[in-house]
Amino acid sequence: MSPASLGEFGRIARFFRPLAAEFPGALGLTDDAAVLSVPPGQELVLTTDAIVAGVHFLPTDGPGDIARKALRVNLSDLAAKGARPLAYTLTLAVGRDVGDAWIEAFAAGLAEDQAYYGIALAGGDSVSTGGPVWASITAFGLVDAGRMVTRSGAQLGDVVLVTGTIGDAALGLAVEQGRLAVDAADRDALVGRYRLPQPRTYLAHAVAAHAHAAIDISDGLAADFGHLCRASGVSGRIAVSRIPQSPAARRAIAASPALMSQVLGGGDDYEILLTAPANAVPPLMAAAAAAGIGLTAVGSTDRADSDAEVYLIDDDGNRVAVEKAGWTHS
Amino acid sequence: MSPASLGEFGRIARFFRPLAAEFPGALGLTDDAAVLSVPPGQELVLTTDAIVAGVHFLPTDGPGDIARKALRVNLSDLAAKGARPLAYTLTLAVGRDVGDAWIEAFAAGLAEDQAYYGIALAGGDSVSTGGPVWASITAFGLVDAGRMVTRSGAQLGDVVLVTGTIGDAALGLAVEQGRLAVDAADRDALVGRYRLPQPRTYLAHAVAAHAHAAIDISDGLAADFGHLCRASGVSGRIAVSRIPQSPAARRAIAASPALMSQVLGGGDDYEILLTAPANAVPPLMAAAAAAGIGLTAVGSTDRADSDAEVYLIDDDGNRVAVEKAGWTHS
Repeated sequence: MSPASLGEFGRIARFFRPLAAEFPGALGLTDDAAVLSVPPGQELVLTTDAIVAGVHFLPTDGPGDIARKALRVNLSDLAAKGARPLAYTLTLAVGRDVGDAWIEAFAAGLAEDQAYYGIALAGGDSVSTGGPVWASITAFGLVDAGRMVTRSGAQLGDVVLVTGTIGDAALGLAVEQGRLAVDAADRDALVGRYRLPQPRTYLAHAVAAHAHAAIDISDGLAADFGHLCRASGVSGRIAVSRIPQSPAARRAIAASPALMSQVLGGGDDYEILLTAPANAVPPLMAAAAAAGIGLTAVGSTDRADSDAEVYLIDDDGNRVAVEKAGWTHS
Repeated sequence: MSPASLGEFGRIARFFRPLAAEFPGALGLTDDAAVLSVPPGQELVLTTDAIVAGVHFLPTDGPGDIARKALRVNLSDLAAKGARPLAYTLTLAVGRDVGDAWIEAFAAGLAEDQAYYGIALAGGDSVSTGGPVWASITAFGLVDAGRMVTRSGAQLGDVVLVTGTIGDAALGLAVEQGRLAVDAADRDALVGRYRLPQPRTYLAHAVAAHAHAAIDISDGLAADFGHLCRASGVSGRIAVSRIPQSPAARRAIAASPALMSQVLGGGDDYEILLTAPANAVPPLMAAAAAAGIGLTAVGSTDRADSDAEVYLIDDDGNRVAVEKAGWTHS
């Protein structure tokens, strides 16, 4: 027997229309399109990220967590660009055997994060698939005109900073896949970071005000630092010993130092890596403290270099190898 | 052996970056996000539609046609809202066994339609899937502020008009699925309409200038007319004998009159159904003629009705039944 289904229109009306209530331009999801005004002096920042079952999330994840991850990976991009969240569109693909209860839980996850991060549904599409569940989101944010923070603005002598802690998600995935054993509390901490990114939305205003360049760390610290340096035409170095780690990650690495290379090379941190001039570090730190978000200076940009190089160095100044720099789950 | 693959970054650089060349805010697809300016006095119209192999297109369709269909179903929504195309984001999911040649042909299809319809790639994501190929597009257009044409603006005594011809795509799908036999030329004509919608982009300015309400016909003429009337709180009638048909559709229906019900109820026409006051019909007709797009008056809106009813009537004034009003391929 098929699970209960209100049908496509019924599900939109019942579960998704309430998510659009805060965004008048969505017209209650009753039209073919939404309309969006950009205030004078501002610009729209837009980003698109999709997640697919078995690739970007665990098939065992609940629908609410899947929804929140889909939204949060996009919110993370907006935050790294210094943009305030405004609205998003969603395309959701599920099998015909997925019942209303699953959709309701998915929408409830979105509702929770919409309220927390201040974003609303503007429109979308729902399709059926015989393959894995997937969700594709395009998210919209606002910045003052000309002030979107790019990857390419890093300047010589910038301080390199990262938010939060690095490596938890990569270790959490290793735990979930049975490649790493930790105690129950650390398991929850690490797997939780893999399952649900923490977009640094509340630091976006400070990134916009102070950063020369920024990127959200999704491919791994080493890889994304490389992307930023190459786009900016600078070389950079990060001191490995200064990379912020959670207590759970620190314990795992203490027990098995070889894991450090997964911390540097693994992905899914969804922290912000940014560069800023030295005199911007105090106001950035103050903004991070006010937002309750960790922010740590980990390195510097070195010299203009047409063949930009990235160094991860240990306390003796030696270069550290990265196991899997630039892993991508395409 | 796996087919050749440049990898995700290589494919973006080689095949997709050229598609973003006309849209400076895309930053050459080298950043996490794009930036988009909306000129003063204008608003952004946004729409999202995804297509999935085996649901919205035939597994035998070539990659270029798949790409163009994905873009065109979104362009059709923009046209119905009276919006000029501006940019779009794309999420594309293919299997790991899909080689570079497939991606190159997909991008070539986009390039062709971008040039024809005047739209550029602003950003996107590519993911791998073990399931069917799919593409999700969010498209952006511009309208003068407050002038997006909705479904809900129809007024009493409006003329109801449709662009192009109705029913070809539904008959084309029937041909493709072996449910309908026609000669080779008609087969090409009908299947072609199913495979590649013809968005009425070049009529968007006239829709914006003159229509009270509009919708693109994707669920079927009867169903979408119902959507428009209900949203507007009016009743409406369409004279079946006035519904424009292509020569191929006319021949098929002459041979098998029962097909008429598929014309009325079938989907994927991607024509525009609009309502306008009688005095706007001449300028609409002139604009359609100038654009080389057929435009036919097929009915009228009747009376305000809280329980809006839609009538399809024959030449004797009798109501015509529709086989599958509102079929949806969710």
